[in-house]
Order: sequence, then structure tokens, then C-alpha cells
Amino acid sequence: MQKGLLLVISGPSGCGKGTVLKEVMKKQNLYYSISMTTRQPREGEVDGVHYHFVSKEQFETLIAQNGVLEHAEYCGNYYGTPREAVETMRNEGKDVILEIEVVGAAQVRENCPDAVSIFIAPPSIAELKRRLYGRGTESEETIQERIAQVDRELPCAVQYDYLVINDEVESAAEEILQIIAAERIRHRNKEEKVKEVLES
Amino acid sequence: MQKGLLLVISGPSGCGKGTVLKEVMKKQNLYYSISMTTRQPREGEVDGVHYHFVSKEQFETLIAQNGVLEHAEYCGNYYGTPREAVETMRNEGKDVILEIEVVGAAQVRENCPDAVSIFIAPPSIAELKRRLYGRGTESEETIQERIAQVDRELPCAVQYDYLVINDEVESAAEEILQIIAAERIRHRNKEEKVKEVLES
Repeated sequence: MQKGLLLVISGPSGCGKGTVLKEVMKKQNLYYSISMTTRQPREGEVDGVHYHFVSKEQFETLIAQNGVLEHAEYCGNYYGTPREAVETMRNEGKDVILEIEVVGAAQVRENCPDAVSIFIAPPSIAELKRRLYGRGTESEETIQERIAQVDRELPCAVQYDYLVINDEVESAAEEILQIIAAERIRHRNKEEKVKEVLES
Repeated sequence: MQKGLLLVISGPSGCGKGTVLKEVMKKQNLYYSISMTTRQPREGEVDGVHYHFVSKEQFETLIAQNGVLEHAEYCGNYYGTPREAVETMRNEGKDVILEIEVVGAAQVRENCPDAVSIFIAPPSIAELKRRLYGRGTESEETIQERIAQVDRELPCAVQYDYLVINDEVESAAEEILQIIAAERIRHRNKEEKVKEVLES
């Protein structure tokens, strides 16, 4: 059986990444990797759904055992991707999606050279502003922070295998589906296929 | 404008490569590169359609000027791919297809690191035999030579970016179309796109 793909998806908030991925996952069965954190669950957060909540000791033991694909520390808490669930799913032939930020993505590319990385960007800063103000739910400060984040993160897009511009949700999702289809062909076990053809 | 792709397609004769490519080109506008040769035109062959027919001196001058992407000598004649037409088309944003054999493909991968290579293989030796005998037009000797060619060339498939098994023409063509779609996204000029987003 062919090993599942490891899809690393990044994109600044406000770029519509969540909506695009929801659209992709309607049409394509993907395993969405749940992050692990040492911070306390917030009201309504469920262990294993929103995050895997673990102790600092458990997290550090996993790091020491090379059990996390990427991790970072924010405000004294660890956040990261546990390796085991990802490997298990991939070995069962399921494609895994990691929705992570640019620093974590760089770590995954380092640790997993066969990862396929996709950066989702808004079509323009003007459009990003229009979307953020249009929602009417975010404070001026949050909006300014999100725009600053795009300025900081967008240059990292050149490190990714693919850059998808979310101009329109349907077509951005379609592009990601095309990437997945082609990468499945690229990641075929060629040696094995060649052997199969020659021996049959 | 985005530079066109350079698609290098190989596959042993009898694998159905021609039929698959015809199907692909029905749905996708591709520039099919015409090879250049120093051999004499055969009855009915048209210069610029079947081959570009050139003199030995012209061919050798082009080689010396780095004007061929790949070339080989068979029976005292040169065969190769002229660089200029390929570059012109790509610079106009058109995807170019080179249908060449495994040795030439290796040269193109060396000369053009951004080439996308696809190997088309028959699903099995048994099926290849069935197809070749089914045609009823080929001599036993030709059929044996074709089978030997598959044995020799198929192991080279592992050097290609993609291996497509031509089990069924429609689905093999569909896979190539998916590869083209994804590679167009991969080959986007990311630096330029990032700049566009940030400045807009």
C-alpha cells in the first residue's frame, strides 16, 4: 500500500485557510493532525479534539524521544505535532494534513523531506483588509496585527513547494485537490511498480 | 507571465504513449517539440512536421553553441532537441512536451533542472504482449524487441518525477493532466506573487 502524503499547510490568519481546507476535506478524505499543548484547556475545549492536552513532563519526554515533528514555546507553554499519530495514519495509506505556522513548517520540512508544503495567501493586502473589516467582529488592533502578520509571514511562502492564492474559495480548494492528486502520483513507490510490471 | 513547463515524456513503444498524449493534447494546449535529425527524409516525411531535417554541419554547430537540449547518434545520424524553439515557446508561457527516450531524458534533466519528467509504462508485460499480438501488424521479432526494450528501459522510470501506468488511456491521460495542473502551481514565480500581494 502507498504511504499517505504529509501535507503541511500554512497561511496567515485572515487568508481564508480554514474555509479553503473545509472545502478540500469535503471532497477528499484527509486526516487532520491534532496539535499537542501543555497549556490548560479553555472553557469548552475537548482533549483530542481541539488539542491533545499533556503535561510539560510528557511533552519534554516526547521531544527527547524525537516524538514531535515540530514544536514551539509560546508564553511558557509548548505547542507541537506528535509524530506517532501522523506516522500511523500515513502507514495506513491516509494523507495527513498539518495546519501549522511558518516556523513549525520549516521544522517539518527539515524532519520530513517527503512533506508537501502549501502556503495559502490572500490575493492582496487590500482584499485582506476588506475581508477583516467586513466581518465586523474584529477589533482594529487585531486587524492591524493580522496585516502585520501577513507582511512578516508572506516572504516565507517562497520556501514552500506550492503557493496558492485564495482569490476565490472554490478555485483555491480545487488547486489543493490537484496538488494532492499529482503528489500521490509523484510519491508512488516507483521501484515497486517497476518490479510489479516486469514480473507480471 | 509565467514561463511554460518543460514536460519530458518517455515510455517504451507499445506502452500506448502516443494514444495517451493525443488524449492529453485534446484537453490541454501543449507545444509538441519537433526533433531535429541529420538523416534523410523518408517518403512522405515533411520538414518541420516529422523532423527538422538539417545537415551534419548545422547539427554540430548547434551542439557546439549549446543549442541542443539532448542528442544522440544512431546509425551515423544525429537526433536531438533544438533548444531555441523550446525556449521561445516556454517564454511565451506555453507548456512544451518532449517525447524522447530515456537517455535523452536524462540529458534534459541535467540541462534543465526545472523539467518535469513523466515515464509512461504498460500495466504488465502480459498486457503489453496481449496488445502487441492483438494488433496483428507486428512481426514476432519486433514484438520480442519491444518486450526486451521494456525490460531495459523500465528500471529508468525511477529517475523520473512521475510514473504513470497506462492501464486505461482515459485515466492515464487524466493523471498527466493533473500533473500538469499541479506543476503549473509549483512553478509559479513565488517571489513575484509575494511581491504582488504585499504591494497591493
